[in-house]
Amino acid sequence: MTETVERETGRVEAFSDGVFAIAITLLVLEFKVPHRSAAPNDAALWASLAQLWPSFVAFTGSFIAILIMWISHHGLFRMVHRVDTPFLYVNGFMLLMVTFVPFPTAVLAEYLGHPGERAAAAFYCGTFVLVSTTYQLWWWTACRRRLLKTNVPPEHIARIWKSYRFGFVVYVAAALLAFWHAALGLGLCLSLWFYWALLSRRTEA
Amino acid sequence: MTETVERETGRVEAFSDGVFAIAITLLVLEFKVPHRSAAPNDAALWASLAQLWPSFVAFTGSFIAILIMWISHHGLFRMVHRVDTPFLYVNGFMLLMVTFVPFPTAVLAEYLGHPGERAAAAFYCGTFVLVSTTYQLWWWTACRRRLLKTNVPPEHIARIWKSYRFGFVVYVAAALLAFWHAALGLGLCLSLWFYWALLSRRTEA
Amino acid sequence: MTETVERETGRVEAFSDGVFAIAITLLVLEFKVPHRSAAPNDAALWASLAQLWPSFVAFTGSFIAILIMWISHHGLFRMVHRVDTPFLYVNGFMLLMVTFVPFPTAVLAEYLGHPGERAAAAFYCGTFVLVSTTYQLWWWTACRRRLLKTNVPPEHIARIWKSYRFGFVVYVAAALLAFWHAALGLGLCLSLWFYWALLSRRTEA
Amino acid sequence: MTETVERETGRVEAFSDGVFAIAITLLVLEFKVPHRSAAPNDAALWASLAQLWPSFVAFTGSFIAILIMWISHHGLFRMVHRVDTPFLYVNGFMLLMVTFVPFPTAVLAEYLGHPGERAAAAFYCGTFVLVSTTYQLWWWTACRRRLLKTNVPPEHIARIWKSYRFGFVVYVAAALLAFWHAALGLGLCLSLWFYWALLSRRTEA
Repeated sequence: MTETVERETGRVEAFSDGVFAIAITLLVLEFKVPHRSAAPNDAALWASLAQLWPSFVAFTGSFIAILIMWISHHGLFRMVHRVDTPFLYVNGFMLLMVTFVPFPTAVLAEYLGHPGERAAAAFYCGTFVLVSTTYQLWWWTACRRRLLKTNVPPEHIARIWKSYRFGFVVYVAAALLAFWHAALGLGLCLSLWFYWALLSRRTEA
Repeated sequence: MTETVERETGRVEAFSDGVFAIAITLLVLEFKVPHRSAAPNDAALWASLAQLWPSFVAFTGSFIAILIMWISHHGLFRMVHRVDTPFLYVNGFMLLMVTFVPFPTAVLAEYLGHPGERAAAAFYCGTFVLVSTTYQLWWWTACRRRLLKTNVPPEHIARIWKSYRFGFVVYVAAALLAFWHAALGLGLCLSLWFYWALLSRRTEA
Repeated sequence: MTETVERETGRVEAFSDGVFAIAITLLVLEFKVPHRSAAPNDAALWASLAQLWPSFVAFTGSFIAILIMWISHHGLFRMVHRVDTPFLYVNGFMLLMVTFVPFPTAVLAEYLGHPGERAAAAFYCGTFVLVSTTYQLWWWTACRRRLLKTNVPPEHIARIWKSYRFGFVVYVAAALLAFWHAALGLGLCLSLWFYWALLSRRTEA
Repeated sequence: MTETVERETGRVEAFSDGVFAIAITLLVLEFKVPHRSAAPNDAALWASLAQLWPSFVAFTGSFIAILIMWISHHGLFRMVHRVDTPFLYVNGFMLLMVTFVPFPTAVLAEYLGHPGERAAAAFYCGTFVLVSTTYQLWWWTACRRRLLKTNVPPEHIARIWKSYRFGFVVYVAAALLAFWHAALGLGLCLSLWFYWALLSRRTEA
């Protein structure tokens, strides 16, 4: 019986990992090869590649974001003992947001540094507000439906809640800030991601 | 011997999961980034993003549909004891339909809210008539070739047949309805998906 | 020690399965959504979708071809006891051809039923001549480097060789035939695939 | 406890394999189907396909490169005993470079044989300088954080360092050479890859 449950968890993790891996790899499709007519020599091609800086920013940012989401999902699943069907739907809803990330990334890559960049940046940050919401829903379902292992300490559960609330508030602030200044909003998102990456270094190493 | 069979099942499940995961993630490619010339400022970009509502509808609908298919495949495979080559082909035929879903989704996203939307909606619903057919063929093959575990109760098998026949009839009705009114046909499909998602909550939780 | 070897085989199989799953799912990207300007009403959209028949033919054919390749790879790997680095490269070379299949498929979808279809069909069939060659190289390497399980009977090995030689000859004939008549060459390829699918039903069921 | 660690390694490997498999399969999207207007008959289509030779070169080169990276990752992971969170980020940074490869590949396919090819070739080779850097960072982290199995001999660790330094120097030389002559820089990269493939045959067979 325990074995069956284990295997079930394994298949959900494998499917989720597949979705994370594909979403993170599709980000590269957002780069557009400069047309030959626009880059008729070496210098012009270098200049065209340099003009793609918004694509590099958007690609790197979204890559780090999805990587953090994957590592977080990875860590959360270590605490999950079994899955049931409602949890599969909530997990699927979270994956819906993960697979959506390449679109706001492409919008940001197109508009950053051009008129409309504030709308693009707010749309981008706003997407992560929804991502954060689905992660909270995921965790709420896991706790509520008693899917966690019994040896997970309550203070650990509380710390995760706190971390999610913090992330949610920062994303909302970033989205609002982006309405006024695109780079500031994006910078706040990126700061959060670097903070999380560095924090994990301390707490889990 | 048993071990070999187990592992075989595992590899088919892994391959199928891969196809489901990729098909569900490719759906996002259907979103088209608004051209910079069409959105020269923040307000125009918000308006352009809002005009993508058919893409959001089609993306969300198809995501839920493929997710339900995956969860259903997941549940069915728990009853499968072993696989043989004909079953691999039937499973492959079912995956053919799964990988096809992004195309009618993209057609729907292009035509919803424009002339031609009834054809697009009927094509979309009609695709799920075929999907439903392949699931019935899958189940028929599993039953007929005695691939199921011996402890699966007959009433459970009968309930699955009933559920598939019900789905098939609803999809046919949705496709016919869409010829007359696009939103009604689509609404019927979406209702079915929400019904299945809620139903599973009751029966398996 | 045995465990390590088993796990190695597992990882190569998982990577190969991933490539097969992605290549088979990317085939759908070859479908082009008809432009709204070309299909201003329901009847025009149905007509536009019907004009995509070469895409449906190419998609279905290539899907079946990759599915057969996957099932074949699946069956061959059941006989493999261990892998070494040269074998990884040969397996990779075979995957190179698998990932290439979506391109001739897209060419065929574009040109079938138009001038140039003979070149497109010959290019398509010719691709499978190379695919067949890489499968023979794969099998040759597995036999030559003694990677097979010791309990594989010699007559089984001989039967696989015979089957590959037969496939190779048919693909060459199909490619040559396509230079003269596109549909005949393609028909020969499709016949081979249906023959293999039906044959496997008899021998392994 | 040991079991948990093993499984952790397994999930990171599976995620990484997924990313490698997807990146290597997306390379085919770089091939552009010739427009029907540009190829109005069989001879013109053959000529158009022949003009895609830069795509074939770029596709084959990048496929071999990612395959070598995967096999290398595969070999390195056999020495890894456990993973921690900082290592997950370093591994993710390496995957960032892997998923980026399809873009310089597409740039190379577009410009090889045209003005601007030196910039495209230098950009392509330069990407592998960064790839090589992330592999060195990966190995450094694994060594430094004591994630390796205790039975890995020091001379083996030293040989891997030497091999990475060698690759790094060759990539830098190739990138510099490409500024002056595109084909020479690319040829140096390809030579390195064939050398590695043949070398592995000797050392591990």
